[in-house]
Amino acid sequence: MRIGELARRTGVPVPTIKYYLREGLLPAGERTSPNQVQYADAHVRRLKLIRAMLEVGGLSIVAARDVLAEVDSPARSVHGMLGAAQSAVTRIATVRGTDEERQKAEREVSELVRRHGWSAKPENPGWRALVQIVMTYRDLERGDLLDLLDGYAEAAGGLATAELAALAKVPSVDGKVESAVLGTVLGDTAMAALRRIAQEDASHRIQRRPHSA
Amino acid sequence: MRIGELARRTGVPVPTIKYYLREGLLPAGERTSPNQVQYADAHVRRLKLIRAMLEVGGLSIVAARDVLAEVDSPARSVHGMLGAAQSAVTRIATVRGTDEERQKAEREVSELVRRHGWSAKPENPGWRALVQIVMTYRDLERGDLLDLLDGYAEAAGGLATAELAALAKVPSVDGKVESAVLGTVLGDTAMAALRRIAQEDASHRIQRRPHSA
Repeated sequence: MRIGELARRTGVPVPTIKYYLREGLLPAGERTSPNQVQYADAHVRRLKLIRAMLEVGGLSIVAARDVLAEVDSPARSVHGMLGAAQSAVTRIATVRGTDEERQKAEREVSELVRRHGWSAKPENPGWRALVQIVMTYRDLERGDLLDLLDGYAEAAGGLATAELAALAKVPSVDGKVESAVLGTVLGDTAMAALRRIAQEDASHRIQRRPHSA
Repeated sequence: MRIGELARRTGVPVPTIKYYLREGLLPAGERTSPNQVQYADAHVRRLKLIRAMLEVGGLSIVAARDVLAEVDSPARSVHGMLGAAQSAVTRIATVRGTDEERQKAEREVSELVRRHGWSAKPENPGWRALVQIVMTYRDLERGDLLDLLDGYAEAAGGLATAELAALAKVPSVDGKVESAVLGTVLGDTAMAALRRIAQEDASHRIQRRPHSA
């Protein structure tokens, strides 16, 4: 199909498609004559995936390109893909603090990982992000909020098991890779969205109890 | 204290503090002489909260200002605060689709909310975000990934109950408001971080099973 047809089928305007081509997110089409380039169904699917990552997942162009480079890598494995998607998606802040505060937070995260019997490395982007979060809670003297982390961890463990089981059911490697990307990128957004709804419900229930606003 | 001392105690450079003052994130200090302004302990705490929201929570300056305006509002309630924090934090994409696709996604989200017995409104930012996610999964023909949402919802329900119970234990209104902000802003980041670690663990376990990479 021509670029106009690609735009029509995906709802993505032609200038935006050209931008994705220039930025290396979308592979070039096949040039069939000096002024004609053909695109295939794979381009339709890739464009939808790009939109999902950018608009729903909130990834930057650079982060989306990093993930797609891994998707297209011949050496890809589902485990490697998951790692690439995780690294691209996880924003790790750098929280100021003394060496002592940092080491204390690292110990707390190690202990949490051990408590949940997880096999994971401190290089995991989530691990590094969690150290920053623990330091932030401690800096704000809100150790009480840290007590919630074990509940979060238990929930995360259950979800990861379900996610990987769903991944195992997907027949093709392409499908598995796409699932790993979507599960990581959109899974965060979905979980955050569901937390908002559940929090509204919990807040209603608490408000109702003492008959006060 | 002078602005230099405020910078020293929080680790936030003076020009950055001045930027937050100009942007209305940090309330002005008290002018004690034509060229001297004094800051209080409340400024230290507020600066730490601003850094947590921007650096660890990843909020924009505008989103952080919206949340803080609600924190400082005389009419604030914990329920209202939670709503303001949720609205500021939740990015809602606008996914293209036909009216029919949108209505179908809205029905699916309504049914999910009903299944979990939640009292919540379609205006909830999480509800609106979830409609976009459902539309995206459908557009990518990945209805199989939608099956994971009930597990996410169950986990979110458990977490919300624990979060609101923790909130109830905080004695002061200031503390409750701060907890609502941190729970929403940093709670998402914490949950995403823990998912990464749990996913690495689940991926290791799956890899080990068939003795293959």
